[in-house]
Formats: sequence, structure tokens, C-alpha cells
Amino acid sequence: MRKGLPEIVFAERKEYADTLRIAQAAVKRNGRVVVSRVKKKDLAKLVSALKKKGLSVEVGRNSTTIIVANTKSQKQQKEKALGRVGIMAAGTSDIGVAEEARLVAEAMGCDTITSYDIGIAGMHRVFPSLKEMLAKKVGAIVVVAGMEGALASVVASMVDVPVVGVPTSVGYGFGADGIAALASMLQSCTLGLAVVNIDNGVGAGAFAASVAKSATRQTR
Amino acid sequence: MRKGLPEIVFAERKEYADTLRIAQAAVKRNGRVVVSRVKKKDLAKLVSALKKKGLSVEVGRNSTTIIVANTKSQKQQKEKALGRVGIMAAGTSDIGVAEEARLVAEAMGCDTITSYDIGIAGMHRVFPSLKEMLAKKVGAIVVVAGMEGALASVVASMVDVPVVGVPTSVGYGFGADGIAALASMLQSCTLGLAVVNIDNGVGAGAFAASVAKSATRQTR
Amino acid sequence: MRKGLPEIVFAERKEYADTLRIAQAAVKRNGRVVVSRVKKKDLAKLVSALKKKGLSVEVGRNSTTIIVANTKSQKQQKEKALGRVGIMAAGTSDIGVAEEARLVAEAMGCDTITSYDIGIAGMHRVFPSLKEMLAKKVGAIVVVAGMEGALASVVASMVDVPVVGVPTSVGYGFGADGIAALASMLQSCTLGLAVVNIDNGVGAGAFAASVAKSATRQTR
Amino acid sequence: MRKGLPEIVFAERKEYADTLRIAQAAVKRNGRVVVSRVKKKDLAKLVSALKKKGLSVEVGRNSTTIIVANTKSQKQQKEKALGRVGIMAAGTSDIGVAEEARLVAEAMGCDTITSYDIGIAGMHRVFPSLKEMLAKKVGAIVVVAGMEGALASVVASMVDVPVVGVPTSVGYGFGADGIAALASMLQSCTLGLAVVNIDNGVGAGAFAASVAKSATRQTR
Amino acid sequence: MRKGLPEIVFAERKEYADTLRIAQAAVKRNGRVVVSRVKKKDLAKLVSALKKKGLSVEVGRNSTTIIVANTKSQKQQKEKALGRVGIMAAGTSDIGVAEEARLVAEAMGCDTITSYDIGIAGMHRVFPSLKEMLAKKVGAIVVVAGMEGALASVVASMVDVPVVGVPTSVGYGFGADGIAALASMLQSCTLGLAVVNIDNGVGAGAFAASVAKSATRQTR
Amino acid sequence: MRKGLPEIVFAERKEYADTLRIAQAAVKRNGRVVVSRVKKKDLAKLVSALKKKGLSVEVGRNSTTIIVANTKSQKQQKEKALGRVGIMAAGTSDIGVAEEARLVAEAMGCDTITSYDIGIAGMHRVFPSLKEMLAKKVGAIVVVAGMEGALASVVASMVDVPVVGVPTSVGYGFGADGIAALASMLQSCTLGLAVVNIDNGVGAGAFAASVAKSATRQTR
Amino acid sequence: MRKGLPEIVFAERKEYADTLRIAQAAVKRNGRVVVSRVKKKDLAKLVSALKKKGLSVEVGRNSTTIIVANTKSQKQQKEKALGRVGIMAAGTSDIGVAEEARLVAEAMGCDTITSYDIGIAGMHRVFPSLKEMLAKKVGAIVVVAGMEGALASVVASMVDVPVVGVPTSVGYGFGADGIAALASMLQSCTLGLAVVNIDNGVGAGAFAASVAKSATRQTR
Amino acid sequence: MRKGLPEIVFAERKEYADTLRIAQAAVKRNGRVVVSRVKKKDLAKLVSALKKKGLSVEVGRNSTTIIVANTKSQKQQKEKALGRVGIMAAGTSDIGVAEEARLVAEAMGCDTITSYDIGIAGMHRVFPSLKEMLAKKVGAIVVVAGMEGALASVVASMVDVPVVGVPTSVGYGFGADGIAALASMLQSCTLGLAVVNIDNGVGAGAFAASVAKSATRQTR
Ligand SMILES: Nc1ncnc2c1ncn2[C@@H]1O[C@H](COP(=O)(O)O)[C@@H](O)[C@H]1O
Ligand SMILES: Nc1ncnc2c1ncn2[C@@H]1O[C@H](COP(=O)(O)O)[C@@H](O)[C@H]1O
Ligand SMILES: Nc1ncnc2c1ncn2[C@@H]1O[C@H](COP(=O)(O)O)[C@@H](O)[C@H]1O
Ligand SMILES: Nc1ncnc2c1ncn2[C@@H]1O[C@H](COP(=O)(O)O)[C@@H](O)[C@H]1O
Ligand SMILES: [Mg+2]
Ligand SMILES: [Mg+2]
Ligand SMILES: [Mg+2]
Ligand SMILES: [Mg+2]
Ligand SMILES: [Mg+2]
Ligand SMILES: [Mg+2]
Ligand SMILES: [Mg+2]
Ligand SMILES: [Mg+2]
Repeated sequence: MRKGLPEIVFAERKEYADTLRIAQAAVKRNGRVVVSRVKKKDLAKLVSALKKKGLSVEVGRNSTTIIVANTKSQKQQKEKALGRVGIMAAGTSDIGVAEEARLVAEAMGCDTITSYDIGIAGMHRVFPSLKEMLAKKVGAIVVVAGMEGALASVVASMVDVPVVGVPTSVGYGFGADGIAALASMLQSCTLGLAVVNIDNGVGAGAFAASVAKSATRQTR
Repeated sequence: MRKGLPEIVFAERKEYADTLRIAQAAVKRNGRVVVSRVKKKDLAKLVSALKKKGLSVEVGRNSTTIIVANTKSQKQQKEKALGRVGIMAAGTSDIGVAEEARLVAEAMGCDTITSYDIGIAGMHRVFPSLKEMLAKKVGAIVVVAGMEGALASVVASMVDVPVVGVPTSVGYGFGADGIAALASMLQSCTLGLAVVNIDNGVGAGAFAASVAKSATRQTR
Repeated sequence: MRKGLPEIVFAERKEYADTLRIAQAAVKRNGRVVVSRVKKKDLAKLVSALKKKGLSVEVGRNSTTIIVANTKSQKQQKEKALGRVGIMAAGTSDIGVAEEARLVAEAMGCDTITSYDIGIAGMHRVFPSLKEMLAKKVGAIVVVAGMEGALASVVASMVDVPVVGVPTSVGYGFGADGIAALASMLQSCTLGLAVVNIDNGVGAGAFAASVAKSATRQTR
Repeated sequence: MRKGLPEIVFAERKEYADTLRIAQAAVKRNGRVVVSRVKKKDLAKLVSALKKKGLSVEVGRNSTTIIVANTKSQKQQKEKALGRVGIMAAGTSDIGVAEEARLVAEAMGCDTITSYDIGIAGMHRVFPSLKEMLAKKVGAIVVVAGMEGALASVVASMVDVPVVGVPTSVGYGFGADGIAALASMLQSCTLGLAVVNIDNGVGAGAFAASVAKSATRQTR
Repeated sequence: MRKGLPEIVFAERKEYADTLRIAQAAVKRNGRVVVSRVKKKDLAKLVSALKKKGLSVEVGRNSTTIIVANTKSQKQQKEKALGRVGIMAAGTSDIGVAEEARLVAEAMGCDTITSYDIGIAGMHRVFPSLKEMLAKKVGAIVVVAGMEGALASVVASMVDVPVVGVPTSVGYGFGADGIAALASMLQSCTLGLAVVNIDNGVGAGAFAASVAKSATRQTR
Repeated sequence: MRKGLPEIVFAERKEYADTLRIAQAAVKRNGRVVVSRVKKKDLAKLVSALKKKGLSVEVGRNSTTIIVANTKSQKQQKEKALGRVGIMAAGTSDIGVAEEARLVAEAMGCDTITSYDIGIAGMHRVFPSLKEMLAKKVGAIVVVAGMEGALASVVASMVDVPVVGVPTSVGYGFGADGIAALASMLQSCTLGLAVVNIDNGVGAGAFAASVAKSATRQTR
Repeated sequence: MRKGLPEIVFAERKEYADTLRIAQAAVKRNGRVVVSRVKKKDLAKLVSALKKKGLSVEVGRNSTTIIVANTKSQKQQKEKALGRVGIMAAGTSDIGVAEEARLVAEAMGCDTITSYDIGIAGMHRVFPSLKEMLAKKVGAIVVVAGMEGALASVVASMVDVPVVGVPTSVGYGFGADGIAALASMLQSCTLGLAVVNIDNGVGAGAFAASVAKSATRQTR
Repeated sequence: MRKGLPEIVFAERKEYADTLRIAQAAVKRNGRVVVSRVKKKDLAKLVSALKKKGLSVEVGRNSTTIIVANTKSQKQQKEKALGRVGIMAAGTSDIGVAEEARLVAEAMGCDTITSYDIGIAGMHRVFPSLKEMLAKKVGAIVVVAGMEGALASVVASMVDVPVVGVPTSVGYGFGADGIAALASMLQSCTLGLAVVNIDNGVGAGAFAASVAKSATRQTR
């Protein structure tokens, strides 16, 4: 019954030294680790310290979440992808959360295909993205969206692949802080959509990867 | 500064006799009246009593809102339509509220075009409806939608005509009672959309008619 | 991009005659249909009317959701299961919602394994249930739980298989109506858990089945 | 079905360089652009950079929203106004949001008449403002109000012209952050009032301009 | 430090026999009693039973709150009014709550002047009512209002006399159940207004009477 | 129908220069003004600037609210007090809000008696304070309290004088920001208590003074 | 680590036959059982059926919660009380919830002392009740209170014994359904108070009994 | 009826000088004092100032709450422990709140056993901790937990000792700021659990100590 999940270090409330130490220990144990929500002021320092130790580090775009791996783990991953996950962000401000999902899915051994900054205004941009994802046989799609969060329903209504919605804390006024997006994803009458909490890119990436991997696992 | 608005009798908390008396007095004064939310048990009795007085009565579909008019008022309306309003309902359970909007818009002298039970599942059914409405030059479109209320944003993103969103108290769980639909309409990043309160078909119909009429009034 | 989803008729707000007619039409089109939330007073009548037409009808335990199928569709289903879904209900009052999930998953062609009335008090009863589900290689597990909803986190923390949490509107006082259960599932720090709205057994069953099926589909 | 709406750049979460680049590109495409919610620290720099490029820039009073246009676009606008919008702000702290509405309405080719800082205490000041607006035949009136937001109802009860209410996040205690104003505008029993989200001056200006323009368009 | 307050029996959750017994005992002790929120089904029976005992009973209009007095107490009250309270109800559905306030104020020995069903639509009807109240030197004014509750602010902004706002649970959609009215009364920027809880006519009447009486008491 | 209310300048969102200018103009018009919620950084500068103009300035303890008066106005006030108001603060952190009430009541020509930092722990300290207030015949008592806000109910249950409750935004966790205190004051079953919004010392002082003054006015 | 807790059957959602069967089985296993929230319509029937089986049954006052025991269990209990619990109800409507606490505490082998219908109006009645409870050395006190729930803080501030607060869903308007009482108990600055959920008399009785018993257990 | 509770100074809103003075005075009166939530910037200065006065000072880990005692008081405490309290923290971010509980319990004369950073992920770490606490006969257990707060239910379901749950304001998204943890603790169907407000370590420590002490007191 044990779990095939990556180690995730939630750095938001940790001191720099603790984060560094814990991250290194995790790489030693598992070959890789995701450090999420590094304090902005610590990011550059942390990345360079880890690189000096000979580790590979990738920083999520518009985010302070990083993935750290040793050489062996990196090599292994390139050889055998364990599934494929599509990740869509509705707007520019949703990219950081989408990147959290991408890094976690990759830490779990999945390939990812991303499509950022689509918006409801640009609905026509959804189709080619979805087509590519389906053509490449993604096992799950993560949709990250704030404001009214409509993109998740729209995508789920178009595909058979399971869709994981991530509301983001974007927007102001009534329904701000992701509440409107969460409510509308939960109220969606489209089948094939489940959600994680507001801004929880980590949870969405892990869930989607576990869906994509279980598909792959069974095919072997 | 006086107002070109119809008289509306809100019957939900009124006794049968009071509603009947007030409705008749209003018709005498203005030629027509909308009686909204008649108690279910009073509807048949009220309609037949009013018809016996020689008045025309129309009952909204799936609703207990009625429009009452005398012969002269009815004739006048047929002769000069003062604008045209499109009305869309997302699902079957939204029709009653949409009908409130229709009756009020017609009481204000507007033509209406309705398109009910479209849903997000049937997005393809939106296009022909919108095309017809635009071809017939509606001055405003009312969109009635519950659950996640996405239809209002979708319509507003496709047309230049002002769209009035009416969230409905359909749905269960988090965001039930219209809260998700209201929040997502307010959070919508689509320009050209304004809203009225949950289930307020009367307010939406009046607002849309006033938009459609001001357009027409200026053209004369 | 079309969808492998069953037809679901949401009967809660429909008249008896409409529900009957729509259900029969759907069976004619697709071989099977799920009718969810039939009005209590209509259930017996509806079931017997459908049976008289030679259709098989199964009623969910403690629920008014039914699955209706013709002979051909029934036979087909027995021959080729398209995945397997595990379904757990924390308490007796959660069984109705769990049954919604089961019927939808089966309508989508999945086998199901159910384990009802486990509770947090009976945590020891969770282990054998999970063991059986994993031994039989379920592709996803639906966990239905009200009150504080802890069972979903507990299960997700023990298995690699994706877990779909369904909070139920059980409980009273602060956090009643499923809010506590929804909040604690969303706040869960366990990876591998996604949720649908409160009491949305239909959504959970469809999502889980789509996960289980995509696994199976790829293996052929 | 294309839209006669201006380009709006929401700068709140954009880097200075991105905002500058995107704004210039938009002016090149459309002749004009509204940049809303420029970061306070970037405002002066952005304005002077745009002016150096030979563009006209107007900054909203008490706000960081700006309208940018090239010479040709500016000239065109002076020649043919496409409708007229009235804009009222209840208090000094509502002026910034009202200015957002004004700039967007003007970017859409409308004339505007503004009347700021009226308040409920100064109800007598409402009348002359409204008289002027009606005399000059505004096609719609935007009313921006915080605290209990009563001004929107009061204005709508006095005029036939459609009124767009904008609650603002002014006030403290219960109902703060615009919730009281939003609730009371939605609960208003006055016909002829629709609302946009709290502080959404951009949405109100665009909606009102689209009402005013559709009136004008039809008269030609 | 003792209190000059009437005895009030809150009957909503009491059995018929208990209410009757407690009411009679209270009249014996104090000469009079207010019984608030008698169960609808008990009202007629209770009134006739009390009258048979030779007591005077007055039932509030549109309400099930009653005032019961013996002959001596009734005579005393007519002789010496201890202050005067004005009571306004915005709409018909607010009358029941306003009557609670009237009965309690009278039980405390005050004269009352009532003005019901004014509404925001009938703002012009406010002036003559207020004039009469001020001419007759009321010591406090109770304003009962649901929906957006604007009447309380409006009245308070016109008079020097303390105004007690009572939001009522009238209205539907966002801000229903009196929340919008409560929020807008609390957010009101008009000085001279304090509030009691939603539907609490009893509390408002008692507070207003205590204001009116302390004025009178000091003049002797 | 004119109002005997002081001018209040709400400085929280005003620039220093504007506040100074508006305050001086108000003193010129009315002899005195209350400036509430001066920005902390502006307080010392503002006070010294006003004093240099020969005006008297009093700063509320633990607060940034001030009262400004010219010599004539100050003299007048000392000669004829127009009523007396008692003001209680439950804890140290409630004193600032209580001082707002005191300054406004005094600006309206009332004497005040204050009793600060009583707490529920120090219930025994309530009695002597109340005794003094009643002995000196206050016409109203303001009770300022955060956390569970119980002090307002307790005081109202002990006296006949009208009590104005002011919940404060003190406390953390569930019911923080004054919500628990507001709710418990509104739910209080003690007659003789009305409330203003959270932290609204200005409103409470004005309301209490208007009660105390109307008492006095009538005695002349 | 096993638990010394009684079996509790939550009957609210159970069929009559199930409740009867489960209750009997529980008595057979443990000698006694508490059946909480029996449906009103089932109560008389259930009690008489259980009595016919030779079991003792006690029904809580104003409640539908019962305790059922066989002769042996009843005898045992009389012989050795395992601690003593005090139970206070603020008002008549709180008695049903208080009785739930009493029955559960007694099912756990505790003596109980009850004091019902004290109210804040009758604060003087609190003292003699508390004195008796302390004299008889209760190990814990349960305080059941609705509306503003102040009684729990008041009692906790007077005694060293641990106090368990139970908010009840009594009251209307803002803070109704027990929310005000819960919030004010949680915000209480009095040490020595902990709470259970709204209306959870069962939880309070069990917690208080476990406190009282652990005290007693250690003394032997 | 007096209270055996320590003096607690809530320093969050106090000036440095006041805190120092009040703390010293309290030590003089009682031998010891807990100063909770010292401002971060004042902590080092305060500790060293108190130590210079010959007082012992202990600072809570990850917290700014301190316990201050004179030599005599310290000696006394070592000699006679008045009960024993177990304290568990679910995660690292909960330690500060747990330490508040520990310091208060020790200030009340109790021994404490702590077990920090257990988490739901590390459920297996709960057992040895609980075993030790039970072996050492703790009289009560405080469980501090944020996010979904499940640990409190889990612990309470395993032991007979009363458990005091403290939700913490950890977590983001829906149910953030401790609301999910509070709701799930209140909704818990496990008997033997009561709660204090979010982050209220002081209240939990005092309540648990009073439980543990009353046990001990009675044994003498
Ligand atoms: N119990 C349910 N909960 C949520 N959605 C449902 C449920 N039953 C049916 N639906 C969905 O609601 C829609 C059916 O609506 P209708 O056309 O009114 O029957 C379809 O999109 C179904 O998938
Ligand atoms: N202040 C504003 N409030 C609401 N929506 C805005 C605002 N400013 C711009 N928008 C909309 O937000 C989108 C721009 O997002 P972006 O592409 O990030 O600049 C467009 O749809 C605009 O119409
Ligand atoms: N309609 C009402 N709203 C609020 N409080 C009331 C109402 N009627 C009676 N009360 C108060 O409720 C208490 C009466 O409770 P009871 O002893 O149960 O009759 C007294 O304190 C009354 O002043
Ligand atoms: N962290 C805390 N949380 C809740 N109450 C506290 C806390 N610290 C101290 N108190 C209580 O707050 C009061 C102290 O307030 P003060 O007189 O302002 O120091 C006392 O009743 C303490 O028991
Ligand atoms: Mg899908
Ligand atoms: Mg549009
Ligand atoms: Mg898992
Ligand atoms: Mg109007
Ligand atoms: Mg006034
Ligand atoms: Mg009183
Ligand atoms: Mg105590
Ligand atoms: Mg336990």
C-alpha cells in the first residue's frame, strides 16, 4: 500500500537554512525533491547553493517552486516517462500555479504539455491546444483558472480525459480570492471534472500524474 | 424625470383577495399590470376571475407570473413595438425566471425573442439562437442561468449588444442558491455584461427593455 | 473529441410524465440511462412503468437514483468491463450518495466494489476493504463522507490509486450541510485526492469511471 | 458577431516593461488603449515614456488608470461622438473607480458628463446633476457608491435611463469591502438598475457605453 | 437600578397551555403583558380565552403578537402617556414587525404614531408622515425596512430625533433574510441611527420607548 | 427638519493638506469640528498647525481622532451642557473607539463621564461606574466592547437608560474583527440595547448625544 | 487504549424498525444505550416497545433522546457513581439539549445536578445553582445557551471547575442558528471554557463525564 | 469560588514599557506570570530586562510567549506537580501555539509532555507518543492542528483522556485561517473532544491544566 509520491517541501514558513538542509536530505534519499513556495528573498541563494552541490535545479516560471534532482535521477527520468499530463493556464497570473503542477507531475516521472494564457476572451486558442494534448495521448489535464474559472468546465465538456480544476486566488470584489472560481468549478454540470483547493497546483499535479501513471502502469 | 415602467404587483406575500383587487385597479389605471409570484394555489382562480372581467391574461411558462391587460392596451401594443429584447435560459429550471423577464419586457412595450434550455452541454445550440437575435436587431439580451452560470459570460463575449445576466437559485452544495452563478457573472472578465439579483427576472426584463427602448426612442 | 459519458437525467425538478418520457427516449438512443434524484413519490410508479416496457431497472440503495437498460445493453456490459471503481461510504447516511456514484460508474461500463458504513470510529474496518479493492486492481476509489469528512484523507494517504472525495450534507451546527467535509477535503495535505461538490455522487462516479477506463483503454 | 470594445490592459500584476510594450502594441493596432490599475510606483515613468513616443496620455483623477491614444485616433474621437454617458460618484473615495468608467467609456467613443462627491448627505446636489445629464440626453448613467450604496437606487428611481451601479470597497465593519453596497444594489426594489462587481469601473464604463452607443447607432 | 420594562413572553416555542398560564400570571403581577410570536394556530383560541377572563386583548396587524391588560392598567395608561414614539414601515410585509414595536412601546406607557407602507418608490409619502411625527413631538422614530433597507438612512438624514432601524427578513437572492438591510443600516453614513437585530420589533419598540420616556421623565 | 449634528471629517483617506484645509473651513463655519481617523503620520503636524491658528485641539486617548474648536465655541460649550452621556470601554484596546464617541458627544454639546478598561474579568468594577453615571443622570450610555462583547448586554440589563453598543474589531479566530461582538449584541435578549457598526465610535457618540439632548431639550 | 464511552445511536435518519433492533442489540452488549434524536413520531412507540422487553427507559425532558438499560446495569449504576457533572440551561428552549448531556453523562456512570432556565435576565439565579454544584463537588459543568450565549463565559469566570459550553440553535436574525453563541463562547477571554458544536448535547455530556470520571478514577 | 488561574498578560497591543511594568508587578503578586504574544521586536529586550531583575524567563519555541517566575515560585513548582498535561502539534507551524499551551499549563503547576510535528502523513508517529502520555498518566491532552485538523479527532478516538483541540490558522484557499480545522473538530463524531478558538493555545493550556489538576486535587 505504499505511495509513489514525490517528497514535497513546503518552504513558505521555513527558515533558509532549514529549507536547504531538508531539500538536500530529500535528494539524498529519493534522487529528487520539489520545494514549493520558497520565500522570494531566498530563491536565488537557494538555487545557487543547490547547484554548487552538483544538483540540477529547475525554477517554475512566475513561481518560486523548484525541482531539484541528482544526475542519476535526471537520467532515469529521461529514459522512461510514466505517463503524460496536459496543463492549461487561463491567464498570465495563473501561470505560477500551473508551473507548480508541472514540476510535481515531472517529479513523479510524467511528461507534460503546457498551454498558458488562453483566457475566455481567447476561447479559439483552446482548440489547437486541446487537439495537441489529445493527439499526444495525455492521461489527464490540469486546468488552472481564476476570476470566474469557466475554462475548467469548458475543457471538461470537450474531452473524455479526466480534468483536474485548480481555482486561483485571482480577481477582486464578490467572489474574490478564488471563491467564485472554486464555486463555479464545483457547480459545473459537466461530467469529468474534479477539483483541488484554490492555488493548490501541487495537489493538482500530483493527482493528475497519478491518473496518467496508473493508465500507463496497467499497459505494461 | 417620470418613469416609463409598468406596474408590478409582488403577490408572494399577499392574500388572494388583495391581489385580485390591486391587479384590477392597476389595469384600470394603466391598461396593463404584471403580477409576479402568485401563490401556486391561487393561480387558476386568479386567472379565471380576471378573464371573467374581460381582461386578457397570459401566464408565464413554468412560472406563476402573469400579465394582465385590457383590450385597448393589447391593441396598442401590437401596433407599435418599442424595442426588442432577446431572452435565453440555460436550462429547463431557468425557464420560469426567464418568463418573468419576458412578461415584464412585453408589458413595457417590447417585442421578445426567447431561446430556452440551451445549457453548457449544448453550447452549439447557442450560435443559431444568437444569430437570430442579432439578425432581428435585439437591443439587449437577458441570459438566465443557474449552477455555474457560465452562459452569461459566453454570450456576452460573442455580441456587442448589452447582456443582462440573471443568476438563478438552481444547484446544490457549495455555491448553491445562485451564489456560484452570481459570483461567476460578477467575476467575469468579459465586457458588456451587467447583472441583477438571483432569480430577479422582473428586474432583468425591465432593465433590458429600458435599454432596448431608449435605443428605439432615439431613432424616431 | 466526443465524450464517452452516459446520459444522466436530473429528475428532481421534472414532472413524472416528463421523466418517464425522457428516460425511455434515452434508453432507445443509448441502451441505458441513469435517472438521478427521482422524486420520492414517483419512484415506485416510475420503476414499474419502465419494467412493464421490458427494461431492466436497478434502484440505488437508500437513494432514488436508478439505472435503466434494455436487454442488449445489459448483456454487453456483462461481457466487457471497461475498468473497476472502488466506492466507500463513511456512514449509513452517505450510502445514498455512494449509490449514485456506483450506478453512474456502472452505466459507464465499469465494475464496482463497494464498502459502506465504515466511519472513523471503525477505522480498523478500512484496511480489509482497501486491501480487497487494491487486490482487485481498482483504477480509482470514490470516498463519500459527511461530518468532518476525514475518511477521504485517510484513504488517500494509504493508496497510490487516485481518490475522489465526495463531501455529504450530513451533520449539524457549524460546518453543517457538508461545508466542514468539503473544507477538510480541500485542506487535506495528502496528495492523490481531488473532490467534487457536496452530495455530487453522479459527478464522482463519472470522474472515477473515466479514470478507471482511461487506464484500461490504454492497456488494449 | 465581433465586438466594438476597446483593448484594456490590466496592469496590476504586470511588470513595468511588459505593460509599456503591450500598451504600445495595442495603440499601434487600435489607435488607443486603456491601461487599468498601473502600479503606483510605475505611473509617472509609464506616462512620460508614452508621451515621449508622441502619444497622448490622460490619467484618471485619484486613480492609476490611463487612456493612451495616437493623434489620428484622438482626432477621430472629437469628430463623432457615438453616444453619451453620465457618471456619478457618491463620495471622494469613489472618484478613482468612477474615472475608470469614464476613461473606458471615452475609449469606446462616448462623450461623458461627470458629477462627483454627491453623497447621501448631499441628496439635494443630485437633482441639478441629473437634470443636466438628462437634458444632454445621456444614454446611460453609471453610479459609483460605497458604504450602504444607496445612491444607485435613488438615481434609478428618478430616471428612465438605464443605471449601472458600481459598489465600491469603501467602509468598515459589517458589510465592509463593498459587500453592503453590492447587497443593497442587488436588493433594490427600483426597476432600471443593473450592477457590476465591486470596484469594477472598467466593466461599468464599457457596459454603459455599449448601451449609449447602441441607442445612437440605431438612430443613424 | 431596576428596569421600567414590560414583561414580554416569547411564545414561539411554547405550548398553548403554558403560554396562556404564563400570560395570565404576568397580567396579575404587572397589569399588562406582551405575548410575542404566538403560534398562528393558537392565536384565536388564546385571544378568546384571555377575553373570557375579562382582560382586554389587542392583536398586532399582520402579526401574532398581542398585548393583554386588565381594566385598571388600561385606565392608567390612557391617563398619563409617558412619551411618544413614531413607527414607520417601508412595505406591507414590514407591518407585522412594526406592530411588535408599537405594542411594546404602548405596553411601556408610550403614545405611538404609525405610518405604514411607504416604500422607497413612494419617497414623497415620507415627508408628510415625518412632519406629523415631528409636529407631535415624538421622542424617537422606529423605521422598519427590508430589501435594501434604505428608508432608515433616509429618515435619519432628515430629523434630529434618534432613529432606531429594524431590518426585516424580506427579500430574496444575495443579501436575503435581512442581511442586506442590516448591512446597509450599519454602513449608513448618516448620524442619528442605531439598529436592533433583523425582525426584532420587540427590541426596537422597547428601546425607542425608553428613549421617549427618559425625555419625558426628565421634564417633570 | 434640520439637524443639530457636528461636522465630522473622515480623514483616513485624505491628504494632509486637504484635511487641514477642510478642518479649518469647518471651524470657521460652525465653531468646531471633529476630525476622525487622522493618519498616524499626520497627527502631530496637524495638531500643531491647528494650534498655531489659535484653535483649541483635543486628541482622543489611544486614538487619532481630534476635536477642534475656536475660543467662542469653547466658551459657549462650558456654559450650557445640553445633556450627559456615559461611555464605557471593556478593555484597553477599546479605548480608542470610546474616545471617538466621547469627542463627538462633546462636540454636540454634551458632558461625558468615562469608565475605561473594565472587562468581563473585572465585572465588579462595573457597578461603581454605573452607579456614578446614574447618579449624575446620564441620558444614554455607550458601551464599547470587543471579543465576545458581553459587557453591552450586562450593562443594558442593569439600567433603564438607553444603551448604545459598539462592537470593536478586537479578537482573533472565529468571530474575529468584531463579528462575534456584533452578533452577540444583536442576539442579546436584554431590552434597552441598540447598536452601531463595528468600531463606529463616531456614530455611537452622535446617537447617544442626540438621545441625551432630546431629553434635556424637552425639560426647558 | 480502549474507550470507556457509552454506545450512542443517532436515530434522526434511521427507520423505526432499525432503531429498535439496534437499540436492543446495544443493551444486550453493554447493559445500556443512549438513543439520541428519535423521530418525534416514533418516540412513544419505541419507548413502549422497549419497556415491554423489560428494559428501563428514561426520556429526556423537552427532547426525544432516551436512555435504555437492563436491570443489572441499572443496579450497578446506583451503587457506584463514577463522578458528578453539573448541567445548566440558560432558557427553556435549551433544556432539550441539556437533557441530551445529562442522559449521556449518566450513561457513563456519573451523577448529575441540573439547573435549567436561568437566563441572563435571571443572573441572580446563577449563584445558588453554582454554589450547590460546587458544594457537591462536580468535576465539570456543562452550560447550554443560545442567543448571545453569554452564560457560559459568566459561569466559567466564577469557578475553577472546567466548563463545557454548548451553543444552541436558538435565536433569529444575524447570528441565528447558534452562530452568535458559538462565536461568543470561542471569543470569550475567560479561561477554563472549552466548547462543542451547536446543539451537541451528546458531545458535551460525554466530554464532561470523562473529565469528572478521570478525576474520580485517580482518587481510588 | 475564586480561580486557581495564572495571570496572563496579552502583550500584542501593549507598549514595551507597559508590558515590562505589568509583568514585573504580576510576578511580585503571584510569583509567576505568562506574557503572551510579545511583539517580535520587543522579545529579546524584554527577556534580558527581566533576567537582569533576577527572574527566570523561558521563551516558548517558535513563539513569543514567555513564562516569568521568581526563585521561590520556581522551587515550589519543582516540588509538587499538580497534574500532567500532554501536548501534541500536528506540524511545525503549529508548534508556536502548542508552546503557548505548554507555558500556561506549567504556570498552573502542571507537568507537561510534548510531542511536536506528527502530521497525518506520519500517523504511525502518533502511537508511541500517545503510549508514553498514557503511561505517564496525563490528565488531559491538547492537540494543536491546522489544515484539515484531523489529528484531534484521531487522537480523541484512541484515548479515554479528555482531548482539547486547538485549530490553527494554517492553510490557504477554502477553509483557510483555521476555519476548516475548527469546523472539522466541531463536526467530529468522536466523543471526548472539546475545542477552543483558532490559535488559542493559552485557552487550551489553561483548560487542560484545570482538568488535570482537578483530577489530582481530588486524589489528595
Ligand atoms: N445528481 C446530479 N448532480 C449533478 N448533476 C447532475 C445530476 N443528475 C444529472 N446531472 C447533470 O445535469 C444535467 C441534466 O440536466 P437535465 O437536462 O435537466 O436533465 C446533465 O448535464 C447531467 O449530467
Ligand atoms: N480593472 C479591471 N477590472 C476588470 N477587468 C479588467 C480590468 N482591466 C482589464 N480588465 C480585463 O482583463 C483582461 C485583461 O487581462 P490581461 O490580458 O491580463 O491584460 C481583459 O479582458 C480586460 O477587459
Ligand atoms: N420577539 C422577540 N424578540 C426578541 N426577544 C424577545 C421577543 N419576545 C420576547 N423576547 C425576550 O425573550 C425573553 C422571554 O423569553 P421566555 O422566558 O422564553 O418567554 C425575554 O427576555 C423577552 O424580553
Ligand atoms: N493569547 C491569548 N489568547 C486569548 N486570550 C488571552 C491571551 N493572552 C491573554 N489572554 C487573556 O486576555 C486577558 C488579558 O488582557 P490584558 O488585560 O489586555 O492583558 C486575560 O483575560 C487573559 O487571560
Ligand atoms: Mg470531460
Ligand atoms: Mg458583449
Ligand atoms: Mg493517495
Ligand atoms: Mg430608473
Ligand atoms: Mg438624524
Ligand atoms: Mg436596559
Ligand atoms: Mg473557570
Ligand atoms: Mg477519546
